[in-house]
Amino acid sequence: MSRLKLLAIPCLLLSLEAAGRAPPAPPPPPGVTLVIHGGAGVIDPARMTAEKEASYRAGLAAALDAGYAILERGGSSLDAVTAAVRMLEDDPQFNAGRGAVLSHAGEAELDAAIMDARGPRAGAIAGVMHVRNPIELARLVMERSPHVMLVGLGAEEFALEQGLVLVPNDYFKTRARLQQLQEEQQPVDTHRAGADSQSKGTVGAVALDRDGNLAAATSTGGISNKHRGRVGDTPIIGAGTYASPGCAVSGTGDGEYFIRAVLAYDICATMAYKKVSLAAAVNEVIHQKLEATGGKGGVIALDAAGNVVMDFNSVGMFRAARDAHGRREIAMYHETQTQ
Amino acid sequence: MSRLKLLAIPCLLLSLEAAGRAPPAPPPPPGVTLVIHGGAGVIDPARMTAEKEASYRAGLAAALDAGYAILERGGSSLDAVTAAVRMLEDDPQFNAGRGAVLSHAGEAELDAAIMDARGPRAGAIAGVMHVRNPIELARLVMERSPHVMLVGLGAEEFALEQGLVLVPNDYFKTRARLQQLQEEQQPVDTHRAGADSQSKGTVGAVALDRDGNLAAATSTGGISNKHRGRVGDTPIIGAGTYASPGCAVSGTGDGEYFIRAVLAYDICATMAYKKVSLAAAVNEVIHQKLEATGGKGGVIALDAAGNVVMDFNSVGMFRAARDAHGRREIAMYHETQTQ
Repeated sequence: MSRLKLLAIPCLLLSLEAAGRAPPAPPPPPGVTLVIHGGAGVIDPARMTAEKEASYRAGLAAALDAGYAILERGGSSLDAVTAAVRMLEDDPQFNAGRGAVLSHAGEAELDAAIMDARGPRAGAIAGVMHVRNPIELARLVMERSPHVMLVGLGAEEFALEQGLVLVPNDYFKTRARLQQLQEEQQPVDTHRAGADSQSKGTVGAVALDRDGNLAAATSTGGISNKHRGRVGDTPIIGAGTYASPGCAVSGTGDGEYFIRAVLAYDICATMAYKKVSLAAAVNEVIHQKLEATGGKGGVIALDAAGNVVMDFNSVGMFRAARDAHGRREIAMYHETQTQ
Repeated sequence: MSRLKLLAIPCLLLSLEAAGRAPPAPPPPPGVTLVIHGGAGVIDPARMTAEKEASYRAGLAAALDAGYAILERGGSSLDAVTAAVRMLEDDPQFNAGRGAVLSHAGEAELDAAIMDARGPRAGAIAGVMHVRNPIELARLVMERSPHVMLVGLGAEEFALEQGLVLVPNDYFKTRARLQQLQEEQQPVDTHRAGADSQSKGTVGAVALDRDGNLAAATSTGGISNKHRGRVGDTPIIGAGTYASPGCAVSGTGDGEYFIRAVLAYDICATMAYKKVSLAAAVNEVIHQKLEATGGKGGVIALDAAGNVVMDFNSVGMFRAARDAHGRREIAMYHETQTQ
């Protein structure tokens, strides 16, 4: 570099200072943010009652606030998404953990994935039948194994090796899910419409912590009346769950369509490679590409600047968001409601 | 549109014709193409013998020609990749089907995926222990189930429902793989280097057929001494296997790194969104991004114009390509050899 060029930088700074114009200050930190979902297309608005709606909202609020409390006291995005998803798994209203939908064989088979943009690191499990909180097992795979994904009996063996206590499959079964399965297995199709609309629930969370790190987590019982061993998009890194330093996504919807679309990663790739906003990337992937294939569902997504996107092409998506600027929003259909 | 503009097109065509310059003819069809791989980092060149090398080359040649014959007589890319991968699965030298590496528990656990850019359609299976040709089961999942992925016992139940005959796990076990596992399970690490270098084999194929359709297929036993239930990138659509109308990829290498990188899809997204060639996209994803994470491996990739890319950052990648323009190439390390 020539001496003239070397001199140019200090001279520029001096001239700025002399003119009273310091270099522009960096933008304020985006602040911590948590976004969660409780599934897309869970209940048709026509079948929703005021009592049910209040109960779903309460469940979403509890998970939102539990996860947000971790971020607020300086905890990691990874801990926040784990806590939020764990609470949704424990809530029998949602299709994950207790209250998961049942397979054709009448059993709960659970899938989950977690991804930490730092590293990046990822863990996923599929087809487990005796792990109370699948998201915790996915996280153990990420943190305590050299692998990303474990399935079936091998995943449960790993759970035992890690000291988890297994639970009987009956722990997951609720009367509502048994009834749903019975309706779907009736030879006549009279109940199909209602059943279908209930079969897409999944829970998930994306978070941005004080250090600017993103994480994503998703957990599900899959689809009601599914074939034994069926795995949807939830535990597929890139399909239902993905986090990079610039973009975190958790999806819910028609899993097979999400897998073929590599949907979660496609949102992040569209944003990074086409240099568009997160909202524009989600819009393109959900409302143009997914819609064109006939797939239904939605995502929650978050970028490193704290921009929140909750978008879907299904009848609704149970969702909630909270951030450091006072936003606290819980919504189910196409309305927006602040609480 | 104004009348003047409407007139402009026929006028332009007339003037071109008048000048004896017809509109440029469409480029000639790319012709059918098949590319296969037999794994990255399979054998360190220092441990390779002339006899072994000839045997691997013969195995690759047989699969290449079997798949290519289908394309040549007008068959689909889907049939060609299925046939090529099936032959590699049946060949005990390669880590897929018979001759798969063994898990820590001493058992073969097999994963496979297939994707047809038409549709698109995809099928995948993981953790199966009794299905002779995993790629055939992946294809059955794609064609005869509403799902994309089935794992473990559920996948085997589906195999039985489809009329496949299951085989005992011993069918897959070869003396070489049992010995490899024993070496890796010795408490001292004297054999680790050699064992590691053998543990990444996987087989795969990508093809372009007469109708211009792309397909991809991959099959593997995973990594030697793996935890029961471990799933690598092979059966993850977007990670180890992916096909779109413009780009088909089959990968082989450090599965966990490939999953976190959503590697196969990232190549296609880079090509489509950044508008670069397939070779440039593969170069960026393998030699910059994968390399930066410490992951090793490679891919075979094919675009709709018949451009072939076989690239890797590992010590070698067993690979072969054949096309309608007379190319017939089989290679193992960084050499290029035409046969």
